[in-house]
Amino acid sequence: MRRKDKIKLNAYMTFTGNHFAAWRDPNSTTGLQLAHYAQLAKAAEEAKMDAVFLADGVSVPLDNPTAASRNAHNGVRPFEPVTLLSALSAVTSHIGLIATASTSFYEPYNLARLFGSLDNLSGGRAGWNLVTSADPFSALNFGLVDQPDHGERYVRAEEFADIVLGLWDSFEEDSFPRNRETGVYLDLDKVHMLNHHGKYYRVRGPLNLPRSPQGHPVVVQAGASEPGRQLAARTAEAIFSAHDKTADAVAFYSDLKGRMPAFGREADDMKIMTGFLPVIGSTQSEAEDRYARLQDLIDPEIGVDRLSNLLGGIDLRGYPIDGPLPDMPETNREKSRQALMVEMARRDNLTIRQLYQRVMGSSGHFQVIGTPEQIADAMEERFEAYGTDGFNVMSPVFPGDLLTFTTTVVPVLVRRGLFRSEYEGTTLRNHLGLKKPGNRFAA
Amino acid sequence: MRRKDKIKLNAYMTFTGNHFAAWRDPNSTTGLQLAHYAQLAKAAEEAKMDAVFLADGVSVPLDNPTAASRNAHNGVRPFEPVTLLSALSAVTSHIGLIATASTSFYEPYNLARLFGSLDNLSGGRAGWNLVTSADPFSALNFGLVDQPDHGERYVRAEEFADIVLGLWDSFEEDSFPRNRETGVYLDLDKVHMLNHHGKYYRVRGPLNLPRSPQGHPVVVQAGASEPGRQLAARTAEAIFSAHDKTADAVAFYSDLKGRMPAFGREADDMKIMTGFLPVIGSTQSEAEDRYARLQDLIDPEIGVDRLSNLLGGIDLRGYPIDGPLPDMPETNREKSRQALMVEMARRDNLTIRQLYQRVMGSSGHFQVIGTPEQIADAMEERFEAYGTDGFNVMSPVFPGDLLTFTTTVVPVLVRRGLFRSEYEGTTLRNHLGLKKPGNRFAA
Repeated sequence: MRRKDKIKLNAYMTFTGNHFAAWRDPNSTTGLQLAHYAQLAKAAEEAKMDAVFLADGVSVPLDNPTAASRNAHNGVRPFEPVTLLSALSAVTSHIGLIATASTSFYEPYNLARLFGSLDNLSGGRAGWNLVTSADPFSALNFGLVDQPDHGERYVRAEEFADIVLGLWDSFEEDSFPRNRETGVYLDLDKVHMLNHHGKYYRVRGPLNLPRSPQGHPVVVQAGASEPGRQLAARTAEAIFSAHDKTADAVAFYSDLKGRMPAFGREADDMKIMTGFLPVIGSTQSEAEDRYARLQDLIDPEIGVDRLSNLLGGIDLRGYPIDGPLPDMPETNREKSRQALMVEMARRDNLTIRQLYQRVMGSSGHFQVIGTPEQIADAMEERFEAYGTDGFNVMSPVFPGDLLTFTTTVVPVLVRRGLFRSEYEGTTLRNHLGLKKPGNRFAA
Repeated sequence: MRRKDKIKLNAYMTFTGNHFAAWRDPNSTTGLQLAHYAQLAKAAEEAKMDAVFLADGVSVPLDNPTAASRNAHNGVRPFEPVTLLSALSAVTSHIGLIATASTSFYEPYNLARLFGSLDNLSGGRAGWNLVTSADPFSALNFGLVDQPDHGERYVRAEEFADIVLGLWDSFEEDSFPRNRETGVYLDLDKVHMLNHHGKYYRVRGPLNLPRSPQGHPVVVQAGASEPGRQLAARTAEAIFSAHDKTADAVAFYSDLKGRMPAFGREADDMKIMTGFLPVIGSTQSEAEDRYARLQDLIDPEIGVDRLSNLLGGIDLRGYPIDGPLPDMPETNREKSRQALMVEMARRDNLTIRQLYQRVMGSSGHFQVIGTPEQIADAMEERFEAYGTDGFNVMSPVFPGDLLTFTTTVVPVLVRRGLFRSEYEGTTLRNHLGLKKPGNRFAA
């Protein structure tokens, strides 16, 4: 029996495109102007997509300077995500606005306020993609010499998330009578101090922001490790996952949703969205040619460097590029991603070059190369198998490939009854079919 | 001889108005929508004003709950300033965008990035109003039990400012060749690590943001204390000051500009802008009636509480409201403001009620009640006396009073040759006549 709900669609925005060599494509933009992102967001909104999304990081590693000098994705970003989405909130009206921010490098009060403000500015369209940062170069920008280990990072992230969620409940919805006659502006009974005293943080509250239109911004997560799954099952309302194979995606989907009842939540309270790279052509071979041209533009220097990073910081530069992936120890960083890469290489017997070519652009995400119908088929199959609730669409080259997706693939999904043709509401929660959360302190 | 330069004009935006009772005025808005600020910013831009400005704070003290419940200015703000100005950057094209952020509660890397991003989004219109926070309730939201003392706060602020300015020099202007043929994206010779190791902070750099259109955002300060003046003379490019009397303003102006050569700077490298509250009427008595009506709306509970705060946390609730200001010890907070208040009360022999009525709405700023011509006269006099380079216009009630200012007072200033009729450029530095800073690391 077909699923009754519809596919969720999120546009993953970058300055130049999600493919690592996008900037060398003659049709890509440099993405240095607000107008570029406004074009992408408006196109996604025109297609009634659920949200646009911005990844983030807080370092320019430069540990491999030559690779960094040849890589547009070297950590330098033209804009900080929350400020960029704030600007986009003024030129869009419906589409959700999701930004990444790390629990490792923000004060919870500041982060709660920035995202709460974005929710207010946008009339209820904000989402926070909660990440814990594994990059040691970021730590050096914040006075931290050593990164806490993986488990410790998640303990801290749990506490951080609890504080942020608690601060977002500082005021009830009707806290402000603003009665000009009586002079009563604020109803003190509806203000709630957090008074948090935890292992890592002490935060009094209240947040100096009225309760936002969505109750609070949608909480998104990505971590697929064991502690990441537990945190997600307890607090995440949307998940950005990475699974190239449907079987893995189905196992992940079932595992994560299965953990939710233990936290008093229903499976439907969280939407899983798979990272998805469509390479679109009017024929299969046109799509494949286009992909091959993009792959040819990848600099081997960057390929090896990027693969080293995806493997958790293992330096592959000493190994023959056309030889097999060496054995490697488990590292403290992004465990789930490393396991995925190693398994892919072993399973398909890939050389280092073949592996970086495979993951450059996809990074272990679900990639489909074909016609709009073929791409819609793959999406439908993954969705109907309960491998995902939707897709985080990572178009290879901007702006063209997102515009091609919204005008060729989305109409196929709509025609098949798999995607909306009009928005049902005005908030990101409306689009994703998520409940508006109550206030924990309310009577 | 008349000054050759022109008056600088900044619109101080709040949600409901700068007068403490603004929210009770039937013509005020609650200011909960982006559209409200967009209206104000567009009106200021239409009048060719230099910038809009947002103050900030990071607490809702609630130390006097009754007063807080009756006060719109209780610390709750509908939006966080940098996100709000980012949104406004998308719906304006010329006007400067200045937000306050405290050195006490932000990580320097995050702050450098947020303001640098705003400068990129706006095409070079960002300003950072650097404050050090004196409010102990803010500290409690950031895990700090005690606030550092006044002197220590400024030592830390100096280091913070140096880091932020250093991070803004991470890249030279032409750091990114983005050469599609050669594959060279970044010129490594034009990237600069900060490698800061100071008393309070360790920050490696580089900032993950390209150099912004203004070189860096305009640095604004307000502190008028001794360490505040030294920091300003060394690093500030604009000053928001508070002087109700021209003689005091002239002394301050001369003192501050006189300190600059010791830091290798010219007097013209910093623009001083006085906080200014115009109460406008078509006749003098209409303006006075309007002001009296606003003053009548002030709740005595708030009046006494606000005065206590302006005096550095001294609790005045035990003293007769119609008696004199008691003797008081010097406190650790906002020293210069306290001295100003005490002097005003002694000089004019004011009771507590009279003092709070005097300062509610003006807070010791320069206030003029009269016709557009009279208001322009007062501005001209203060400007020509070298008491200020411009005005931070604090309209009492929004949106009406700002619109009245831009349509009645600004045209008088333009007619007199004291204010521009067209923008000379597109950046905040262009408007203020400030040089674009070089990169300290450039050869």
